[in-house]
Amino acid sequence: MGTPSFDFKARWARAASLMETHGIDAMFVMKPANLAYLTGDGRPCALALFTRAQRCFLAVPASDLRSVRAASVATDIRTFASEEDLFHGFQDVLREQGLERATIALEKNFFDSALYDVFKAHILPHAAAVPAGPVISRLRMLKEPEEIECLKAAAQVAGTGMAAAVKAINPGVREIDVAGEAEYAMRKAGAEGWASATYVASGWRSAMAHGPASTKAIQAGEVVQVHLAPIASGYTVDLCRTILVGQAPEEARRALDAYIGAQAAGIAAATPGAPLLGIDAAMAGALERSGFGGTFLRPVFHGVGMEHEEAPIPGGHAVIHGEEKVEQVQAGMVLAIGNCGIYRDDFGVRAEDAVWVSERGPVPLTTYPKTLVDPSR
Amino acid sequence: MGTPSFDFKARWARAASLMETHGIDAMFVMKPANLAYLTGDGRPCALALFTRAQRCFLAVPASDLRSVRAASVATDIRTFASEEDLFHGFQDVLREQGLERATIALEKNFFDSALYDVFKAHILPHAAAVPAGPVISRLRMLKEPEEIECLKAAAQVAGTGMAAAVKAINPGVREIDVAGEAEYAMRKAGAEGWASATYVASGWRSAMAHGPASTKAIQAGEVVQVHLAPIASGYTVDLCRTILVGQAPEEARRALDAYIGAQAAGIAAATPGAPLLGIDAAMAGALERSGFGGTFLRPVFHGVGMEHEEAPIPGGHAVIHGEEKVEQVQAGMVLAIGNCGIYRDDFGVRAEDAVWVSERGPVPLTTYPKTLVDPSR
Repeated sequence: MGTPSFDFKARWARAASLMETHGIDAMFVMKPANLAYLTGDGRPCALALFTRAQRCFLAVPASDLRSVRAASVATDIRTFASEEDLFHGFQDVLREQGLERATIALEKNFFDSALYDVFKAHILPHAAAVPAGPVISRLRMLKEPEEIECLKAAAQVAGTGMAAAVKAINPGVREIDVAGEAEYAMRKAGAEGWASATYVASGWRSAMAHGPASTKAIQAGEVVQVHLAPIASGYTVDLCRTILVGQAPEEARRALDAYIGAQAAGIAAATPGAPLLGIDAAMAGALERSGFGGTFLRPVFHGVGMEHEEAPIPGGHAVIHGEEKVEQVQAGMVLAIGNCGIYRDDFGVRAEDAVWVSERGPVPLTTYPKTLVDPSR
Repeated sequence: MGTPSFDFKARWARAASLMETHGIDAMFVMKPANLAYLTGDGRPCALALFTRAQRCFLAVPASDLRSVRAASVATDIRTFASEEDLFHGFQDVLREQGLERATIALEKNFFDSALYDVFKAHILPHAAAVPAGPVISRLRMLKEPEEIECLKAAAQVAGTGMAAAVKAINPGVREIDVAGEAEYAMRKAGAEGWASATYVASGWRSAMAHGPASTKAIQAGEVVQVHLAPIASGYTVDLCRTILVGQAPEEARRALDAYIGAQAAGIAAATPGAPLLGIDAAMAGALERSGFGGTFLRPVFHGVGMEHEEAPIPGGHAVIHGEEKVEQVQAGMVLAIGNCGIYRDDFGVRAEDAVWVSERGPVPLTTYPKTLVDPSR
């Protein structure tokens, strides 16, 4: 697909309206995904100040002036020559705009605590600092139709990668070789990068909650989890599949069947207006009924879009991620459903998909087949 | 190379000694690189409390118990079923160990500000929280001989990737295809993942300070920057090269020559006992003399090891990264030197290498050729 075009004016108007509701005068934006959402350009090492009057002051490395002018809708672009300049330059912007004693939102779930302290003390000594999440995460949580097209492009790339991974999985092949084949196929299909490490976890490693590919060789009879998160058109999806190599244990086959069924129940629960935690309850109930209850890690889902994990983040996890609690499923959300798994001592199974909550109900964006038991090889 | 073996007892003794110096009773460790350094296992979503009495309480997802027992030297391993459990479980550990009102170090440059606030309020309401950097970054900054071997392995992987990238660069080829070839070659050579996005930035994109590969096709006469940061044996290096495709502009050739000369001066300045910022001064002086002064971004170098950027971080950048200022080059440091570049409106050139500061002076670990003007094609 070509370069997507978004309605930044509409985004700015929605942002300004939310800022008014929350009494926020201006908002610092540094997280690349947030910068991309508001300005069309999400390069690292850039910082913007977006005001309620809908001016956007952007600072980028001096080298980047030409390219950022072409890509960004920021109204005022400035340059800097070092990280120190980057931050200090905004003292002048705040003074010029009469915002030194204003209420300023900061990305508290992006700034590390050390940087936050320095920034607050040196750049905002007199301002009231509040979290930016209630404005920007709420905007980004509900995807526009153009964003769904980007997510579909990313889903297609992920499917291509999964097909390459499944083809590569054979006894004797190293996990990193499977990752290499998947990544290569995804690059050819348009992947701009990776929103998360490529996981290929075989045998006992599949029992780990997080399994970046290692140099371990895959053995016959093992369970292999593959998890892909390519970036395409600036968006990412979560696609996880479990492959049973040759004569995998009978319990793993049963667990995978049960998990796929539970995930389907979770996806079905993602209808507009339903309780958000109903997705968790649906998966937990299905696992309980199939005899695999009580064993899985939470959260079972999370939002996905420009980031691998973004709003909505369910339940108490929202607090830990610096996000707001959200009570209901809403049309426009895109959720990665199946972010848990069934784990035993010597294997783990999982299936995860990106699901768009449309007005008419859940629409899986990733559609690679789930039952990969005994592939004919 | 096989699995490296490190002397964790010695690391714990050094950590405890530094904690005593700083009046720290215990230290929470969550950053994977720090966990790997202290326990041998750096999986995500794990949290450890290391006490001055050299006990190490580690919490991992319930699924991970078996694999973490095999990999970690932590003395007490506990499990949890959700992120909330992970954090709350440590309230009991602190109570049991009599540390509720102790001085506890936290990774303030890893915890985001939102999580830090929640953690401080709920887990450490009565403790004195101090930054963990003065202990753990100081330990990790000086590499052990076994770590240098791991870094050499990573450097070899990076060199293999650069050779594949250079071979792939031709007019009409997309940047993401070049990235795909480099990553594929690095996976085959043993890459466990990527410590930073693979940069392939051609033509006007080479003028950007950060250039993750895009779908842009490379044209004849363009400048192409390639930056690789594979992880191998748990360690990473920085390797950046600039390739001039066909009849690249004369000014780009001159700039690249000047930059390679300046980088060599910077590397030569990395001798034990010399001022750390002498590396910056050496590069700046060389660029000044060759007529390319005053144009480059800082910092011109940073530490590299288990992370893409780690201590030492020079000058004022240290404050922004939550690290301590370090005044002198010390034997055992590994520095990525050349982290700046010469940028013009329509091109940018750069060369960056991982350099080990040995007792006898600087030893580049990445050794791929630097002058890639007019490759014979």
